Amino acid sequence: MVELDRKESITLLTGVSMGRVGFTHQALPVIRPVNHLVNDDGDIVIRTHAGAALLATASASEVVVYEADQIDEATHTGWSVMITGTASRVTDPQALSRYRTELTPWINTEMEHVVRIRAEFVTGYRLETTPSPP
Amino acid sequence: MVELDRKESITLLTGVSMGRVGFTHQALPVIRPVNHLVNDDGDIVIRTHAGAALLATASASEVVVYEADQIDEATHTGWSVMITGTASRVTDPQALSRYRTELTPWINTEMEHVVRIRAEFVTGYRLETTPSPP
Repeated sequence: MVELDRKESITLLTGVSMGRVGFTHQALPVIRPVNHLVNDDGDIVIRTHAGAALLATASASEVVVYEADQIDEATHTGWSVMITGTASRVTDPQALSRYRTELTPWINTEMEHVVRIRAEFVTGYRLETTPSPP
Repeated sequence: MVELDRKESITLLTGVSMGRVGFTHQALPVIRPVNHLVNDDGDIVIRTHAGAALLATASASEVVVYEADQIDEATHTGWSVMITGTASRVTDPQALSRYRTELTPWINTEMEHVVRIRAEFVTGYRLETTPSPP
């Protein structure tokens, strides 16, 4: 298990299109798989819909976690990156319009809202194979 | 997006070997990828090490979430299952011994502790392709 620095972690995150957002909703922890893009600041951008628990979380500027990984179930090698930071709604019309163009939701529901997660804390590690003991 | 019932959800979870556990640690949300087994009650069993944040969470019998999914990044089809329930440490010697035999940790660290997550709430859905509008 090898630790990754912030830059390596963000690069890995940029190279995949989905991850899982974790937050608290009605006092219970929730994890939701979503597709994302990573903006120039290394922040996570995701789309969501009116009424989504995540939108309420972002409206309240709560701290959430975003995790992405690629781990091979056969070899047990790969990586995991975790971003922790404040979620907020994107309301600037230009940014909204740009993110709506650049990020297409995977589910067939109206997803008119955009949430940004600030990359305040970034941690990551790589799982490497270890030689068997002699 | 088609909802799955409890039985279907548990069956899908049993068919994969890893997922992500979500909980709160020092007032911040955390997501960790781990490998699991599903016991006969549909509860999630995972191994962990002394000093792990998850072990403290389980010792305090806090509610956590466990999520697993298989979503194809190209076709955007697949499924996601989420279990919410109380985490606790397995301390019964027979159960400990059995789980240590049945569940091998993927990382090369001493993982002598076992945590069980009760399947109190089980939700799941399947993402299906939708025909393009005419």
